[in-house]
Amino acid sequence: MEGHVNFTLSDRLRKSPYYEATLRAGAKTFTIYNHMIMPTSYEGAEADYWNLMNNVTMWDVAAERQVEITGSDAFKFVEYITSRDLSKLQIGQGKYALITDEDGGIINDPIILRLGESHFWLSIADSDVLLWTRGLACGLGWDVNICEPDVSPLAIQGPNHLPLMIDLFGDWVMDVKYFFFKECELEGIPLIVQKSGWSKQGGFELYLRDGSKGEELWDIIANAGKKYDIKPGTPNNIERVESGLFSWGNDMDINSNPLELPLGNFCQLDKEAEYLSREALHKIRSEGPTKKLVGLIVDGDPFVGGCASPWKVMSDNQVCGKVSSAAYSPRLKINMAMATINNSHNEIDSEVMVETPWGTRSAKVTSIPFN
Amino acid sequence: MEGHVNFTLSDRLRKSPYYEATLRAGAKTFTIYNHMIMPTSYEGAEADYWNLMNNVTMWDVAAERQVEITGSDAFKFVEYITSRDLSKLQIGQGKYALITDEDGGIINDPIILRLGESHFWLSIADSDVLLWTRGLACGLGWDVNICEPDVSPLAIQGPNHLPLMIDLFGDWVMDVKYFFFKECELEGIPLIVQKSGWSKQGGFELYLRDGSKGEELWDIIANAGKKYDIKPGTPNNIERVESGLFSWGNDMDINSNPLELPLGNFCQLDKEAEYLSREALHKIRSEGPTKKLVGLIVDGDPFVGGCASPWKVMSDNQVCGKVSSAAYSPRLKINMAMATINNSHNEIDSEVMVETPWGTRSAKVTSIPFN
Repeated sequence: MEGHVNFTLSDRLRKSPYYEATLRAGAKTFTIYNHMIMPTSYEGAEADYWNLMNNVTMWDVAAERQVEITGSDAFKFVEYITSRDLSKLQIGQGKYALITDEDGGIINDPIILRLGESHFWLSIADSDVLLWTRGLACGLGWDVNICEPDVSPLAIQGPNHLPLMIDLFGDWVMDVKYFFFKECELEGIPLIVQKSGWSKQGGFELYLRDGSKGEELWDIIANAGKKYDIKPGTPNNIERVESGLFSWGNDMDINSNPLELPLGNFCQLDKEAEYLSREALHKIRSEGPTKKLVGLIVDGDPFVGGCASPWKVMSDNQVCGKVSSAAYSPRLKINMAMATINNSHNEIDSEVMVETPWGTRSAKVTSIPFN
Repeated sequence: MEGHVNFTLSDRLRKSPYYEATLRAGAKTFTIYNHMIMPTSYEGAEADYWNLMNNVTMWDVAAERQVEITGSDAFKFVEYITSRDLSKLQIGQGKYALITDEDGGIINDPIILRLGESHFWLSIADSDVLLWTRGLACGLGWDVNICEPDVSPLAIQGPNHLPLMIDLFGDWVMDVKYFFFKECELEGIPLIVQKSGWSKQGGFELYLRDGSKGEELWDIIANAGKKYDIKPGTPNNIERVESGLFSWGNDMDINSNPLELPLGNFCQLDKEAEYLSREALHKIRSEGPTKKLVGLIVDGDPFVGGCASPWKVMSDNQVCGKVSSAAYSPRLKINMAMATINNSHNEIDSEVMVETPWGTRSAKVTSIPFN
């Protein structure tokens, strides 16, 4: 199969609490994310896309691990690791933030949840934030405790998620604002229920707080969802590219910095609190970033897969950037790509060439999201 | 196939410089290791095992990434992160070491190579040591620079490796002592050649220092190896369990400590240099560890795969430990397992029960290695 290989299981690669349930539900392909096996498709990328776009889906995203930070310096520490201004972060609220190092490089892009005055979770992408934060805290000698708790998110995503959520939890879910959350139980299973998820089709994430109850929780949702024709799903590459959701490790990493991304709203470089990357980011700002992450609409036949290795972006036979994510949108009927391109060619409507696995194609720079 | 799933490729999951070459050579299954795709078999675990045991094999182990540490505090820092005494580590020498945190938990178990007075590589197992060390150094404020250089090991392993190595590099390779290394070139390709590798069948690792030359290096070795009937291979689960090579993430992790492992020779808890986990490890030593990693010989039919999830070790219907690695040895004709077992049942010749995927089996505690 295009873009797939046969994969050896190992104890080193952790099973999600929902793993057996996802096999029963027909999970067909997988990835490794935070040292954990995560399903990536059931019926295929496009069929899964329509299930997500048209109705409601449930996803095993246990691999979105949590890094828990407590202790008397916890709040100061969480401010210290990001340029996002967290001074108004309420208990019961989450905020998307870029974790950056002393050079401004992006370590990860979690949602930061505030569970208590000095109690935070970082709901992370695919790098060992546990090691970064523990190392840093250890070197600083600050009073924080950092661990990975037994927490495994299950996402309910899609435009028709709300009636199911009301059936399960009650009317209060209608009043939850984006990225806010509530601690609660479902048939005795301890959860945090947050209005969030890695799609723009609406929905919630249920942070399971007892890994032994994974299959039980999965079955409760699947059964309650039957009357709404719920389908198993996964983070979907087509939808997330359309919606402009970036993927750490693809579209950004330790060699990128926040000023190269269209994420200005999430970076307050002049915030009051002390933070590690202030000096580096101010320097980059004053010099100006040399490249930018932009969208590309690419000509030619529909892509028959995503971007499994960086694709060169060319102009006048010179490399001027690289594509890090791509998908054909069966709804918008365009080939979409996310690319980091040098300043010479990253203005809207600039024309470039892209070396795809299916030949060299002309492309035009556009804004993100695509829809 | 038992113990295998279908796997989605992504730009987030890095390709090794040898990736295309390994596909050409017939790589059949893969894993993810340090965010990189690594082959795990060619002809199958047992056929690959015999190729390794009987002759000579070449492995893509680029996923064994390097963390480079330089700067005026580099030596002090490298001593600080491990209980291994590195005071006599020579330039041109490597030592196996456990990297431990402030609680004594094992972050990783690299080979530490000393390239210069203040120039080190950690040749790492599967966790983001880059983030741990950078975070720690950043918090400490020490003068070190830490990065992941463009270095990708290729291993040549097996009892008949020496004539091939002499053909490639000359007679000097005969005099290289275990874990010592030399900087050199092969047809203009910059390498470090070390007597090392993740098997006990003898051999070398060639640390390629220019990722653009991966296929070229692969082909040079493959062609020179033809007269010795070299085969492509990978780290082999059967051989490494027989030989007692532990796998970080399987047999040890951040929740284990060095005193639970039979690795006393690699830990000098009273070494002179300052190190982070001294207090924690001294406390564990004085209280005594509560469990130990031991070998098990397990009764019954040959295992038809490895340990893809922890297997419970039982005694009197109580859980007393867990198996983290397992294989049937077609040479020793025994079922081998590595298990961490509570003090109540970890003495040599203790009898326990093991819940394997192929039924509950009786087993006897033995020492490691098995051969």
